[in-house]
Amino acid sequence: VAPRSRARSRARRTADTRALFESRNLDAWVATASADGVAHLVPLSLAWDGARLILATEPDAVTTRNLAETGRARLGVGTTRDVVMVDARLESTVPAEQAPAAVLDAYLTQAVWDPRDQDIPFVVSILAPERVQAWREADEITGRTLMRDGAWLG
Amino acid sequence: VAPRSRARSRARRTADTRALFESRNLDAWVATASADGVAHLVPLSLAWDGARLILATEPDAVTTRNLAETGRARLGVGTTRDVVMVDARLESTVPAEQAPAAVLDAYLTQAVWDPRDQDIPFVVSILAPERVQAWREADEITGRTLMRDGAWLG
Repeated sequence: VAPRSRARSRARRTADTRALFESRNLDAWVATASADGVAHLVPLSLAWDGARLILATEPDAVTTRNLAETGRARLGVGTTRDVVMVDARLESTVPAEQAPAAVLDAYLTQAVWDPRDQDIPFVVSILAPERVQAWREADEITGRTLMRDGAWLG
Repeated sequence: VAPRSRARSRARRTADTRALFESRNLDAWVATASADGVAHLVPLSLAWDGARLILATEPDAVTTRNLAETGRARLGVGTTRDVVMVDARLESTVPAEQAPAAVLDAYLTQAVWDPRDQDIPFVVSILAPERVQAWREADEITGRTLMRDGAWLG
């Protein structure tokens, strides 16, 4: 008898991923690179406004500088054995106090801290996801792509 | 009464970090970049031989290619709120079956799978840590550096 696969369907993984993106105290491992190929990685609070990912960083942080230089990030959300990987394109970076209200509301609700209320005011970066993949174990490598070219595959 | 800081001492963080590096089923978030500045990030099994970090990857994986191109990786180990960040330099990449016995033993013991025993044999990369930092919350940002220029600060 063949072992029963526990691999989740794409619909199930998409629902799980959206629920994760909406959760409070959400964190991401945010990888960026400088234009000359030095990788950076740091855990950051993450928010989701239903379509875009939102990060808040210090204006002179390596992540802020890399986003400005290359306009791209790759994020890992969840755990190493229940992972969501996101390739995203930078839409804009603005001082936190100038961020659109809906973006700031999403951040305040999910991250539960205020990026405006820091010694050095933070900047807010809005990222458009282009590809989203989710898998747990080896049996979920097939079917891991949930979003391609910015569109959920459904 | 001032709140009692829960920040760990450097000695405590170093002991915690070494214990983490020695644990079984250890995973890392491995960030690398291409020479032209495209960041990659992927969760991988990690092993530690007491001085170097050991990864096994497919020969044509993005991580393998980036390590060959730039010779560097930045790894996140632990969780986003109890994190160890490692900046590491590539020492060598060899086919898994040609890896030194001590390196392979460390990998087999910790990762609990055999990189030689795959459809496409994996390569093993040995990385020398240059900087190690560990923190939990904001009160541990000070004193987060445990290794500098490849030497534990003790």
